[in-house]
Amino acid sequence: MPIRTLDQIPTPALLLDTARLDANLGAMAARARALGVTWRPHFKTLKAPAVVPRLRALGATGAAVSTPAEAAACVAAGLGDLWYTAPFAPHKAALLAPLVANGLSLTLLLDDPAHAAQLDAAAQAAGVRLGAMIELDIDGHRGGVEPDSPRFGDLLGVLGQARALDLVGLYGYGGGTYDLAERPARQALVARIAGGVAATADHLTRHGWTVRHRALGGSPVLAEARAADLAGIDSLCAGVAMVEDLAQCGNGVAQPARIALSVLARVVQHQRETGRLFVDAGALALSKDRSTGPQADDQGYGLLCDAHGTPLGDGDVVVTAVSQEHGLVARRGGGALPATLLAGALAAGQPVRILPNHACITAAGHDGYWLVDEAGGVAGTWARVNGWIAPPPTAQPPGQSEG
Amino acid sequence: MPIRTLDQIPTPALLLDTARLDANLGAMAARARALGVTWRPHFKTLKAPAVVPRLRALGATGAAVSTPAEAAACVAAGLGDLWYTAPFAPHKAALLAPLVANGLSLTLLLDDPAHAAQLDAAAQAAGVRLGAMIELDIDGHRGGVEPDSPRFGDLLGVLGQARALDLVGLYGYGGGTYDLAERPARQALVARIAGGVAATADHLTRHGWTVRHRALGGSPVLAEARAADLAGIDSLCAGVAMVEDLAQCGNGVAQPARIALSVLARVVQHQRETGRLFVDAGALALSKDRSTGPQADDQGYGLLCDAHGTPLGDGDVVVTAVSQEHGLVARRGGGALPATLLAGALAAGQPVRILPNHACITAAGHDGYWLVDEAGGVAGTWARVNGWIAPPPTAQPPGQSEG
Repeated sequence: MPIRTLDQIPTPALLLDTARLDANLGAMAARARALGVTWRPHFKTLKAPAVVPRLRALGATGAAVSTPAEAAACVAAGLGDLWYTAPFAPHKAALLAPLVANGLSLTLLLDDPAHAAQLDAAAQAAGVRLGAMIELDIDGHRGGVEPDSPRFGDLLGVLGQARALDLVGLYGYGGGTYDLAERPARQALVARIAGGVAATADHLTRHGWTVRHRALGGSPVLAEARAADLAGIDSLCAGVAMVEDLAQCGNGVAQPARIALSVLARVVQHQRETGRLFVDAGALALSKDRSTGPQADDQGYGLLCDAHGTPLGDGDVVVTAVSQEHGLVARRGGGALPATLLAGALAAGQPVRILPNHACITAAGHDGYWLVDEAGGVAGTWARVNGWIAPPPTAQPPGQSEG
Repeated sequence: MPIRTLDQIPTPALLLDTARLDANLGAMAARARALGVTWRPHFKTLKAPAVVPRLRALGATGAAVSTPAEAAACVAAGLGDLWYTAPFAPHKAALLAPLVANGLSLTLLLDDPAHAAQLDAAAQAAGVRLGAMIELDIDGHRGGVEPDSPRFGDLLGVLGQARALDLVGLYGYGGGTYDLAERPARQALVARIAGGVAATADHLTRHGWTVRHRALGGSPVLAEARAADLAGIDSLCAGVAMVEDLAQCGNGVAQPARIALSVLARVVQHQRETGRLFVDAGALALSKDRSTGPQADDQGYGLLCDAHGTPLGDGDVVVTAVSQEHGLVARRGGGALPATLLAGALAAGQPVRILPNHACITAAGHDGYWLVDEAGGVAGTWARVNGWIAPPPTAQPPGQSEG
């Protein structure tokens, strides 16, 4: 019997609220238009080939990816211009060479001359040309190369000599915004990074380089940047804002009502002496991500909502501990749950939605999504492209695996 | 071209060292024989159907499981007597009913009368009989019901009236041993739990109940219990000791040379200014488990070994931070790596094995295992049974999924 409503779904399961997803996608596209930049969606959050038609309908022709499997899925879904934003081990050039030979435009993020030389050699050996974006460290926050450092000069030297790498642009990651609780401080940081990227691009242009892209990355950048601060920027990479999560909320960038991704679980049993309860979602269904731990509201391993996606109680009902397959639910801090909840939305057997700390990590524990609406209707399923290599490699011909 | 050696494997990837696995399995079986108990392997760690022939060769006829998918895989591999050790949501009775109708003996762990009544109703509705093990709380550590509590009496009352649940035994979980750093303290706790389980079983027997199993759970119990302390015990559930992990080592129960499971990664690039480096394994390949965080040696997100599985440096080279697809490697505490390592085993492009904090959680991020020996030969692959429901349910007939 096909599953038509949320209460028929076996738990735990990953839900994607398509109304919220579409609202978030529309908002991201509108923000990019208002800022005069191209939004480059990051595929690493959803990893769902079925979302690509929605992205293309909003104008996307490219994406950012973090694994070869994501790259293959994006190409198959019609996105032929990809930026690979995770540190790229040289052996992956050979894995992706067939896609590049077939028309994929693949650009790598680089910040180190020795790494660039190895990638150039690997690309030559694989018989492909790859794009290179230099990741700049403007704010001293993360990876990247400082534009006034000797290393930056060395990297340009390698790229100038490279036979299979073409410099296509500069990239600044706004990850430092995740550590700033106040919007004005985040906007000031974005302005500083954008200014650094643009100034460096202008400098390179004056020295004869062609800099096609001046890009920034990070969902808070897209959500909050001021157009005047992005004068020299043409591209923004952002992914998690498609679905949002509790860490984004704790940072002031999102609100729980915008979180489109949740884990469906059921109340299994109450622990009567303590007023707490167990749900059938634990470390594997929720992940062990604790991104909200240092924030003002520590959400434990996730925030409990009713089956329609509305936070329970005073928005203080959380998973306080996890074993592999179950979670302990209490009020934030460990206190007993209100009796009205225990007799109602949290009665034994009730389905609940658990909002994730970090959407990208929680989603990776699941093979796919159940598409739901706020009324609890199920519209279908989407598969995820988990793992790293597509198709998975085999050590032996089929039928001969060691047993 | 089939992959024959470790250095041909695309990274990140999950490795299973079969020599270490076999040594651990043999040791577990030998310990169980010496203790005069039946070892019931927990499937939740490896989730690999291909390991079942090895378990059966060591005498196993049953297993412990934590998901319906694991149960289906065990049955298909010939293990027809399963204990489901995670809190069991009643709707799962219908999911597993076809297996039970086909001969599976399925036993649930219970500690709550209301939950037991719901499970009895669900089992009746599904047309199956299920076994019930009462989980006892002897040490006040975790779930379970105290044998001298009113709740225990209520639970017996429900089981006495149940029409589809049969009491088959008592179970005590030795999870409290994970919090004790000294072996004598762990042994004393095991003796106390075993004594409590046996005494309660004797009490029930005197009152006319048939108690077929008196069981304990937890890898440290199997590893360290003294035979004299297990006089009344017939079964031990243990899983993680098949492969061991850093948390077990930090607890004094295992040693790194026994860890059979690791994540293969490659050094991508050095961060020259800090003497640190990046590998292409991050939060998804390693998990965000931080079980060693409170231990004497905080192993970050994993301990680095060379390609043969020997810890690097002074056993103090760890992943200190993770992004989704990369890890930052430094000495424990964040310090620079020795130049000899950076020029040798940690040169760019070198493969490394990263030992996991918590094997069950790290393994769940991967679709399967590469079987390797210490010399780096690859003997084949094993698939894992990830997810929860087998086969995955569909919301719509194939071809009609929403897109």
